[in-house]
Amino acid sequence: MTDDLQTRAINTIRFLAADAVQQANSGHPGLPMGAAPMAFTLWTRHLRHNPRNPKWPGRDRFILSGGHGSMLLYSLLHLTGYDLSLDEIKNFRQFGSKTPGHPEYGLTPGVEVTTGPLGQGFGQGVGMAIAATHLAAEFNKLGHEIIQSYIYGIVTDGDLMEGVSSEAASLAGHLQLGRIIYLYDDNHISIDGPTDLAFTEDRAGRFEAYGWHVQQIGDGNDVEAIDAALKAAKADPRPSLICVRTIIGFGAPHKQGTSKAHGEALGDEELKAAKENLGWPVEPRFLIPGEVLEFYREAVERGRERETDWKMRFDAYQRIHPALGAELQRRLEGELPDGWDADLPQFPVDAKGMATRSSSGKVLDALSLKLPELIGGSADLTPSNNTKFQGAGDFEKENPGGRYLRFGVREHGMGAALNGLNLFGGLIAYGGTFLIFSDYMKPAIRIAAISSIRSIFVFTHDSVGLGEDGPTHQPIEQLMALRATPNLTVIRPADANEVAEAWRVAINRRHSPTAFALTRQNVPTLEGTDRGFLSKGAYILKDFGENPQLILIASGSEVSLIYEAAQKLFAEGMAVRVVSFPSWELFEEQDEAYRESVLPKNIIARLAVEAGATLGWERYAKSVIGLDHYGASAPYKVIFEKFGFTVENVIAKAKELLK
Amino acid sequence: MTDDLQTRAINTIRFLAADAVQQANSGHPGLPMGAAPMAFTLWTRHLRHNPRNPKWPGRDRFILSGGHGSMLLYSLLHLTGYDLSLDEIKNFRQFGSKTPGHPEYGLTPGVEVTTGPLGQGFGQGVGMAIAATHLAAEFNKLGHEIIQSYIYGIVTDGDLMEGVSSEAASLAGHLQLGRIIYLYDDNHISIDGPTDLAFTEDRAGRFEAYGWHVQQIGDGNDVEAIDAALKAAKADPRPSLICVRTIIGFGAPHKQGTSKAHGEALGDEELKAAKENLGWPVEPRFLIPGEVLEFYREAVERGRERETDWKMRFDAYQRIHPALGAELQRRLEGELPDGWDADLPQFPVDAKGMATRSSSGKVLDALSLKLPELIGGSADLTPSNNTKFQGAGDFEKENPGGRYLRFGVREHGMGAALNGLNLFGGLIAYGGTFLIFSDYMKPAIRIAAISSIRSIFVFTHDSVGLGEDGPTHQPIEQLMALRATPNLTVIRPADANEVAEAWRVAINRRHSPTAFALTRQNVPTLEGTDRGFLSKGAYILKDFGENPQLILIASGSEVSLIYEAAQKLFAEGMAVRVVSFPSWELFEEQDEAYRESVLPKNIIARLAVEAGATLGWERYAKSVIGLDHYGASAPYKVIFEKFGFTVENVIAKAKELLK
Repeated sequence: MTDDLQTRAINTIRFLAADAVQQANSGHPGLPMGAAPMAFTLWTRHLRHNPRNPKWPGRDRFILSGGHGSMLLYSLLHLTGYDLSLDEIKNFRQFGSKTPGHPEYGLTPGVEVTTGPLGQGFGQGVGMAIAATHLAAEFNKLGHEIIQSYIYGIVTDGDLMEGVSSEAASLAGHLQLGRIIYLYDDNHISIDGPTDLAFTEDRAGRFEAYGWHVQQIGDGNDVEAIDAALKAAKADPRPSLICVRTIIGFGAPHKQGTSKAHGEALGDEELKAAKENLGWPVEPRFLIPGEVLEFYREAVERGRERETDWKMRFDAYQRIHPALGAELQRRLEGELPDGWDADLPQFPVDAKGMATRSSSGKVLDALSLKLPELIGGSADLTPSNNTKFQGAGDFEKENPGGRYLRFGVREHGMGAALNGLNLFGGLIAYGGTFLIFSDYMKPAIRIAAISSIRSIFVFTHDSVGLGEDGPTHQPIEQLMALRATPNLTVIRPADANEVAEAWRVAINRRHSPTAFALTRQNVPTLEGTDRGFLSKGAYILKDFGENPQLILIASGSEVSLIYEAAQKLFAEGMAVRVVSFPSWELFEEQDEAYRESVLPKNIIARLAVEAGATLGWERYAKSVIGLDHYGASAPYKVIFEKFGFTVENVIAKAKELLK
Repeated sequence: MTDDLQTRAINTIRFLAADAVQQANSGHPGLPMGAAPMAFTLWTRHLRHNPRNPKWPGRDRFILSGGHGSMLLYSLLHLTGYDLSLDEIKNFRQFGSKTPGHPEYGLTPGVEVTTGPLGQGFGQGVGMAIAATHLAAEFNKLGHEIIQSYIYGIVTDGDLMEGVSSEAASLAGHLQLGRIIYLYDDNHISIDGPTDLAFTEDRAGRFEAYGWHVQQIGDGNDVEAIDAALKAAKADPRPSLICVRTIIGFGAPHKQGTSKAHGEALGDEELKAAKENLGWPVEPRFLIPGEVLEFYREAVERGRERETDWKMRFDAYQRIHPALGAELQRRLEGELPDGWDADLPQFPVDAKGMATRSSSGKVLDALSLKLPELIGGSADLTPSNNTKFQGAGDFEKENPGGRYLRFGVREHGMGAALNGLNLFGGLIAYGGTFLIFSDYMKPAIRIAAISSIRSIFVFTHDSVGLGEDGPTHQPIEQLMALRATPNLTVIRPADANEVAEAWRVAINRRHSPTAFALTRQNVPTLEGTDRGFLSKGAYILKDFGENPQLILIASGSEVSLIYEAAQKLFAEGMAVRVVSFPSWELFEEQDEAYRESVLPKNIIARLAVEAGATLGWERYAKSVIGLDHYGASAPYKVIFEKFGFTVENVIAKAKELLK
């Protein structure tokens, strides 16, 4: 292509973005205008993708971690021939459009990850790179490299300032994830002004310390330099950061290089001046010169060829390695193997029981044998979270086939990586930490929920019942906070059998994340929990007597408590229903008739018992035994006693309620 | 002192810790045993403190960021003469003791910060260093250096892996906070095993990239090397990290240097072997040799002398600089100046109104003139959060007297730093970001709440009303999640007058943090909000008619909506009460009579309207108009319309309820 065409192709991105932001009178023109050349270089010379099949498994992945620059991505998607019309571009940031303010996975064809909250794209890319590396180790054979994806990204100052990126970057360096190639839009500007105000660290030095390959490009418009750096990055076994010095809002004569170009429309006048400055027709808006479109749309044919070639290679692979080929096919399609849950352990009634974190470990052992796609780890709490299944080898640079992930003390990075692992395809990824540290990774949990990703969060030590570690480690508000999060399923199983069912539910919920809340302490295995009713969210564990006058409701470790209380109340002549209530979300999915059958409206004497915040329980109960203050450091039996989680207190409160 | 006494003094720490953990059969012996020499060196040769007055303002601060090693700190506190008896040590991790599993500020004399959740201590230290630097700039005069505190800490592998520390470290390097001197307990072990599993970055290189002064010590038992490094750190203008290679559980022959020494009691046998190994009497437990105690207790006299000397210097300062001296005295005592809130702006009724983030900015302008202790900033959203008051200069290394903090895109680091700023004394610190990003800093908010710190969190863009930025930026569950957090006051003001009162409340609540939820969009200034009733949490904004048959409840931007709906319903002949409900916590502090006067039990037709999760509203309302799904990218008026936040829908739902 000629230099002129190249320049016009780049300017097309710039002005599609600037025009769309102007039309919406809202958005971020600066990033697209500054980063257009690197995006152009990456998308037209390196990125392997098929615009007509955004789900082609052989594709590279592109992540715009600075999601505020969404118009950069939307422009590229439209130009290269994805199913994203110019009308959608014109409808930027309008209700019902496919072009929301920040890219949303699942909404817009070609958007690989939801970004916007800074650092999340960076971290999800690390998970994708783990996935690609692991699947390559599992499936690639000499001469049959089916999994070859690179994970490309554009990351920003804000991304690099966020702690989640630091965690993810350190992990990526440790694991030497050479498939990661991130272009850093080093524009020296953030919302407050020049990055000099707050961000003067030696970024290159920092990433070198993480074990990354770092390159510097002085002129963000130098396509050849960017191209050469991308080539060098691919040739290097380390994850790569290419620092590209850009000018935010490039071309806008009065606003470029300042924070004024960042987060608002340029304004008609400045937009006009920018177009004149770069030799671009002022009208019409949303101009795409014919030969520019033609050039970009070559991606369609190139993509088709690439996918065809990949399919041929995959066919050959399937012929030579039929078992592996079939397995890979299944995994990429996201189908579960027949009978995957046939051998889940069942647990006999047992007064001593075991901690639900322990039964979770046993269930994982069983699942891991049937589900080779299961991969997971812990944020350095492996022996506490029971997340390592029998025989799991560590995923390490020398052992990329390993299915156990050592995330380090990096909950937030873990959360983001889990999302990327699950997004990549072919894997089901879970990760563990203490429930209290769900706070450390909440933004990643939310990304999973908003993106409908099947990330499984194994949170153990789920209440003051964890004991001596004390208030700093004892969750109070966390359960309710997670329940309030849309499209996240929270499950707090009562015992080992409910744990088995909880895993079944989580694996089956392909389009939403699940969070388990599991005990540190032993809980008895109860009669009646083995009927699979957990999947209904709440169920009648037992009616003591007919026509109950009282319903006792609990989740998790408190279920055995109300069970015993009900027995005693029944012995005193009261008819009492015991409801195990492991999951609000599952219960609220049931039909009205089922819900009424468990919690009939006419039984108003309902007492809920849960070792957590009471806020919210008014939805289902008249009275609550809960905790609206911080915990205490002591053996857990003492804590339960002191805070009223005793059979006696349940009985007393129940009688009060019946008065 | 003799080498022998020194060794025994160090071993006393080791075995007090190991014995206490053994007695509790719970806890972390490894850190204290490995880090005892560095703690010894710091506490006996450098730390300026007065055990008999843990609140002496002239003291240095000590932070055990790896709070799991709490017995190290408790040992030091007991040995150097703080009000922490040996019985408390023996009562480690028991209910009601002053020696909980992780250090808790406010509970144990001499514990400067709550730690345990990793990285929080590291980050709070950065805030403390900002405070010390700022106060020194404001108050110190040549020859009268009243504020000289160093911020010492012991940080661990886990601390360095957490993103919050990365954020805080980058900020500390940028600001060149030379008062920070952190000893890094580089023991090569975390819970999962050797740090090789997950943490192989070049830590020294990383901190050098942040702009820190980094030193390496090869032998963690080398007291003289540690001493020399501490001296060098003080002489260097940069923040300092001293990497000390230690052996976790030093002395325990079979467990030292392994993760087995980390998080559980050594066991009687190994404890015995450790004592024999280090030449320590196996019995009695909790042994403190007389001359060791005598040596440590010199800290009492030394501390008394230091404080006396400081007081003399402060007296001289007060004589020579009486105004400054009086001001510093007031500030250190935490007293507010007379009339500090006399000139808070009042806002006339105004249908157009303004965004509550804007009125917050105006209130801040007024407060900043009366409260020189007010210092604050934003995580790179200054123009959006309106957190910069008129005339505020940036706090930078060249301008340490500046009262505005450029935190960068580092919400979590900001949260931790705010806590440290407020803990140090003499300042009231606030920080802003979008409400959605409260998720990024939740662990720090919780530390503020658990530690009763007056950190003020200015969260703007508090609902889908922020408009075009879309679902990734629109809070849904955040409000309820914060409300569920004990000892955190959440205030969502309806208009400018409620904002003014919200700031008054937040400043007055000396022992708890406050979170504001403020709008991006304009809200009208209503009649009746200027009566100061916000402080009661909920109040009757207006009764339309007598003996209301319906109560409409709302917070924030939805109050004007129910107000208008009530007007219309009244015009149709209904008697309707409008309740503004800005703060659940404040309301729940009111007496029963007041609460009954606002929400009488006999009026059951109550409709709550809030643009957030409905979970929880059952406590106060029969029906709720809320949002239990993610938002949308569109102009906010469209969103409000589409999601039912309209006068018409309120009226319709109210009528349904009355049926």
